[in-house]
Amino acid sequence: MSLREAPEACDIGMIEAAATRLAGHARRTPLLSSPFLDEIAGRRVLVKPECLQHTGSFKFRGAWSALSALAPDVRARGVIAYSSGNHAQGVARAAALHGVPAVIVMPADAPRLKIANTRALGAEVVLYDRANFESREEIGARIAAARGLTLIKPYDDPEVIAGQGTAGLEIAEQAAEEGISEADVLVCAGGGGLSAGIALALEAKAPGLRVRTVEPVGYDDWARSLASGRRERNTVEAGGFCDAILTPQPGELTFPILRRLAGPGLAVSDAEVRRAMALAFTRLKIAAEPGGAVALAAALFRPGEMRGEAVIVTVSGGNMDPALFARVLADAAG
Amino acid sequence: MSLREAPEACDIGMIEAAATRLAGHARRTPLLSSPFLDEIAGRRVLVKPECLQHTGSFKFRGAWSALSALAPDVRARGVIAYSSGNHAQGVARAAALHGVPAVIVMPADAPRLKIANTRALGAEVVLYDRANFESREEIGARIAAARGLTLIKPYDDPEVIAGQGTAGLEIAEQAAEEGISEADVLVCAGGGGLSAGIALALEAKAPGLRVRTVEPVGYDDWARSLASGRRERNTVEAGGFCDAILTPQPGELTFPILRRLAGPGLAVSDAEVRRAMALAFTRLKIAAEPGGAVALAAALFRPGEMRGEAVIVTVSGGNMDPALFARVLADAAG
Repeated sequence: MSLREAPEACDIGMIEAAATRLAGHARRTPLLSSPFLDEIAGRRVLVKPECLQHTGSFKFRGAWSALSALAPDVRARGVIAYSSGNHAQGVARAAALHGVPAVIVMPADAPRLKIANTRALGAEVVLYDRANFESREEIGARIAAARGLTLIKPYDDPEVIAGQGTAGLEIAEQAAEEGISEADVLVCAGGGGLSAGIALALEAKAPGLRVRTVEPVGYDDWARSLASGRRERNTVEAGGFCDAILTPQPGELTFPILRRLAGPGLAVSDAEVRRAMALAFTRLKIAAEPGGAVALAAALFRPGEMRGEAVIVTVSGGNMDPALFARVLADAAG
Repeated sequence: MSLREAPEACDIGMIEAAATRLAGHARRTPLLSSPFLDEIAGRRVLVKPECLQHTGSFKFRGAWSALSALAPDVRARGVIAYSSGNHAQGVARAAALHGVPAVIVMPADAPRLKIANTRALGAEVVLYDRANFESREEIGARIAAARGLTLIKPYDDPEVIAGQGTAGLEIAEQAAEEGISEADVLVCAGGGGLSAGIALALEAKAPGLRVRTVEPVGYDDWARSLASGRRERNTVEAGGFCDAILTPQPGELTFPILRRLAGPGLAVSDAEVRRAMALAFTRLKIAAEPGGAVALAAALFRPGEMRGEAVIVTVSGGNMDPALFARVLADAAG
């Protein structure tokens, strides 16, 4: 049986089309580095800081891609999304810039800053209780049907994957400028939209670069799924330090892509994530939220689990309660 | 009497030559923004985050420019600099990348992180007591003469001004991409190297953009000097919150340039700087050190002191003790 038994949900043509739609709207983030991080990791560490993207995470790429791909009359009726935060902000901002309404379904225990930001970005926020009987998918589907809204899924949507893949196009170009043709590309993985999009872009544009998913220990559904060849579930689904990237299991559309293209998955501890967050701040001058720092943590503290003279790392987002980061930084400084 | 009675130390030709030497070595920093900051300021706020430059501040530009402009045999003997920190790191890194020795003369009470970083970047650090009889200039001159080193001054050096001016070339291009042809450009001002370099670049490439110096209240030598038409001194020279940009008075070479090109100077309080630092983190996801946040503070909290629908702001650096920033963030969150 071939690994590629069925057509995949997204391809390089869709990613390049998304890049055209995103031009002048999404930010081209730079590639950052520090000799101090290189020394810790024992190899060159190149960081793609998607925390500097509009709304503070890569999610704006997928949201813009999905909204801009809708037929104008469909888009005009509005969109809906469910999200623990970053996808919500991306959809809210992309909808506001398109001049269409957005409804965001969020867990009531999401970080306060994310809820407040989503509202301030112009979206209507509907909160739900994670412990409740009804799932966010059910709530989203119900409201969408009632109001004629289009659901923008956080990762299992071909145009969302294509939008996230534009980060991969940039990585391919920027790695070439740095003279890097062979390296692991560590990507913070929740549903796998960013990982899958980047993997497809690299397959076409920089085949010597290989995506590796990175997750928190205890929430390593991607690592286990890539090892077993089928979608494994996490036993715990919420409450972790790296809240932004906790999903029940790999996405239905993203898994076949990464099963074919990704290397073995990596997992890091919360303590490693905290140290990576502090180092991202002191050495790169960027805010990396817990879920956004897992890939950097792997690059810095699991050097034996990857090969090559360089490693490329995404910092997927920087949205978090300031008090939380103040504690992380104070702990690291103390 | 014409305002331009004598040739100035730097011009657009030198800045463009520096840009050629810096290509592939200095980072082209992006232009960041947030609708949340726009709302506070009442106009579009576009931020040039030089904290993302190599060594965490714009100083790497001037250091690379100065080193790369030296004759190879002169450069090979090594360089020396005196600095409270950011210039030191810029010179240390630029020297290491050129493969030549660097000696850095620093005050013993400079932030620990800056001293440690400068040493780790490969430079020999010589500490001096700010209260001591001998000035840093005298110490630097003595060591330079003894070892045949070339002194790289922090701002009163034409090639350093030219290097900082490359940030102005980028601002001119990036403002045009954003559709901005008329705006104040607020620049964090110490000796005035960054302000003067940007002013010269904008004069040639974007004449509708005007530099305004920004300083801490109580250390507003630029504002008073621009008002009086002569170089005024600060009565206090050290110990302020915004340590990176405290200098005794405007530079000898930078003052004539800014007297001719800059608008009225601005000054902000330490409380405003702290709020700007927290907002730079929560809204732009960047680390802005106190001296690096004064221009953003002016844009956000002194909107009546500037005109136009947009304002462009430099964040000049992001190097600071993590414990200090943890307190700033905890205070803002509390």
